[in-house]
Amino acid sequence: MIGCGFAGLAAAKHLARQPVEVTLIDHHNFHTFQPLLYQVATAGLDPSDVAYPVRTIFRHDPNVVFRHGRATAVDLDRRRITLADDATIDYDHLIVGTGAAAGFLGITGAAEHARPLYTLGDARRLRNAVLGALEAADAHPENFDGGAPTFVVVGGGATGVETAGALMELLDVSIRQDRLRIDPRRSRVVLLDAGDRLLAGFTDTLGRYAAETLRSRGVIVRLNEPVQEVTATGVRLADGEWIAAAAVVWAGGVTVGPTLAGTLAADHGRGGRVVVEDDLSLSGHPEVYVVGDAAAVPRAPGGDPCPQLAQVAIQSGGHAARQILRRRAGRPTEPFRYKDKGMMAAIGRRAAVTELPRGFVLRGSLGWLAWLGLHIVYLIGFRNRLIVLVDWWWRYVNWPGGPRLIDADVDSD
Amino acid sequence: MIGCGFAGLAAAKHLARQPVEVTLIDHHNFHTFQPLLYQVATAGLDPSDVAYPVRTIFRHDPNVVFRHGRATAVDLDRRRITLADDATIDYDHLIVGTGAAAGFLGITGAAEHARPLYTLGDARRLRNAVLGALEAADAHPENFDGGAPTFVVVGGGATGVETAGALMELLDVSIRQDRLRIDPRRSRVVLLDAGDRLLAGFTDTLGRYAAETLRSRGVIVRLNEPVQEVTATGVRLADGEWIAAAAVVWAGGVTVGPTLAGTLAADHGRGGRVVVEDDLSLSGHPEVYVVGDAAAVPRAPGGDPCPQLAQVAIQSGGHAARQILRRRAGRPTEPFRYKDKGMMAAIGRRAAVTELPRGFVLRGSLGWLAWLGLHIVYLIGFRNRLIVLVDWWWRYVNWPGGPRLIDADVDSD
Repeated sequence: MIGCGFAGLAAAKHLARQPVEVTLIDHHNFHTFQPLLYQVATAGLDPSDVAYPVRTIFRHDPNVVFRHGRATAVDLDRRRITLADDATIDYDHLIVGTGAAAGFLGITGAAEHARPLYTLGDARRLRNAVLGALEAADAHPENFDGGAPTFVVVGGGATGVETAGALMELLDVSIRQDRLRIDPRRSRVVLLDAGDRLLAGFTDTLGRYAAETLRSRGVIVRLNEPVQEVTATGVRLADGEWIAAAAVVWAGGVTVGPTLAGTLAADHGRGGRVVVEDDLSLSGHPEVYVVGDAAAVPRAPGGDPCPQLAQVAIQSGGHAARQILRRRAGRPTEPFRYKDKGMMAAIGRRAAVTELPRGFVLRGSLGWLAWLGLHIVYLIGFRNRLIVLVDWWWRYVNWPGGPRLIDADVDSD
Repeated sequence: MIGCGFAGLAAAKHLARQPVEVTLIDHHNFHTFQPLLYQVATAGLDPSDVAYPVRTIFRHDPNVVFRHGRATAVDLDRRRITLADDATIDYDHLIVGTGAAAGFLGITGAAEHARPLYTLGDARRLRNAVLGALEAADAHPENFDGGAPTFVVVGGGATGVETAGALMELLDVSIRQDRLRIDPRRSRVVLLDAGDRLLAGFTDTLGRYAAETLRSRGVIVRLNEPVQEVTATGVRLADGEWIAAAAVVWAGGVTVGPTLAGTLAADHGRGGRVVVEDDLSLSGHPEVYVVGDAAAVPRAPGGDPCPQLAQVAIQSGGHAARQILRRRAGRPTEPFRYKDKGMMAAIGRRAAVTELPRGFVLRGSLGWLAWLGLHIVYLIGFRNRLIVLVDWWWRYVNWPGGPRLIDADVDSD
């Protein structure tokens, strides 16, 4: 099993204590709770709050073995995985859940200068960039347009909305509590989307609510604004307008292209996602499953692909594991059917949107409480859950408690 | 005031809400609780548990301003500090508390290959190296002498004893709970000291107790073993013996040499420490104080220098601040007198040594409880204190909960 994201983890959990030998391969020794990376990037949570060692997760499951290393190739015919250290691992069944990578849609300079938010390293780097820009503006306001840094977020999906909202709150804390010498009327967070609404996956009402709430909190929301170019100092819009920015956050989508799954000898669909059969196996290789963000997981047999969400990863990973057990038991595999449990996005303190199946929606404080509860329940491991709760509670009653550490300079001290 | 370590922080706390303008300069935006860095390095605590943003510490003190930046030079005659970004800051009074840096005693290869433990970055790098070596041994035992990694700690003072004890515990957790495929009888922690005892600053009895306790827990304690050379793969002792090591921890002492204080136009004593007057001011510059690890702080007027300890830094920083207030009030300065409040070193779970003034000592479980209580009381900030407590409690009842994240690869993902 390659990849310890939501999909790989769900699959391994299903296979734990079953009569199979499971080898989990990942080049990180931890699982990352990706939906909260934006809080790490905006100094609300600490990296270790959203990361959990894989060995710890499976410490009571003797048939699950972890192998730290980067899988570089899969030979489907020989059923053999090659790792970066040239070691090889043979398999009977394989589940590939290697996720995706930021997809920059061919926008000039985006790959070099925009900052994605898909890995823990992304989040740490963004945090260092944001906090570093705030300190730089405090020391040298003359270097900033208008005396204050502007942060641009590209992409108005859940990640973009959550990041923009959290950046605005961070600016507020920094200026009020940390007494940074930045003019609050001049510090800006700009959220850009090429489409005509936010939260395209949610209902229209919730998209409008998100835009209104963000605007009421000071975020500049600009719709129908495709980005033409990203540089080290800002973004240029399609109509030629230039926005100087201390950091450009990339929330504009992902692609499977550069990952291991992207190199699999298989058909690839939109965004490089691996095309799979209805049971999530590879065509011609019923012993190989591709799941999570890496695959074009069909919503139902023959249906459209699901969006790349944590829920889809968890359900598809579990499905693949069950099919392996069925095959071993000599039974036919079953097609995958996505059970929509709803979607959520937090806009900030006491404001979130929750959309449940059958059109039931929550927003505002109630949506936020639902968001909080669900994320805490899903966070892996009691220790992390408790500490995140303490962090959040403390941050709620007393904002300045966040881990606002600039550790970019740890490499040079 | 340059430096936000124990000395600078104590000084700034004394000057907060006094009729003076205080500018705190540091190239880290956080204070580091150095006595617990060894726990970060051995994955017991998270980096943010021992680091606290300076702006948060002084958020209620409007006369204390933080400036993020590296001070590169002090012009004592012009009373002007130059920063790395070429900005300058003029002062009426100056307190220099820039600490020290690892001092490698001229040992060949030590500066390049031994891993010091003085900054948060040091601790993170050591953690990544140690956890990385354990994973590498799991994947490729054939690459390690005896099939398991050896960790060497150079220097048997408090840092060396604490690090060796904690490394041994980490090995135990990794092998038992994480099911690393390492032969526990072959994995080794070696503690080397050139002298004939451990914990040279403590009484003989406690030094012997530390050695016995470490040995009973599996650490190989070797005294009278000066190190001749450190390489990327191990250490060579003075008698020619070679010890292969996956990581060499440097706990062999510090020097002021490469720091800002080391470049001050002043007399420098042993280890580059700045020679100061009895009131801790610079000779000829009564408006400049040097405190903490950076200075040869006299124990009493005309006395020997104090050891480089957190207590000395805290007391000398506070003293310098009080003298500035006295001078502003037109009163003469007072000489510094160190109040020995005792010393502590933790050997591991339920074993620590505490030496109080007048020869009163604690060891074993009682010493450990004293150590735990004191460290929690001294940890800055309620949030950190609470979280460290949760961390520790959890680690005590359920070891595998530590933040064993290898984040070296965050730069490349």
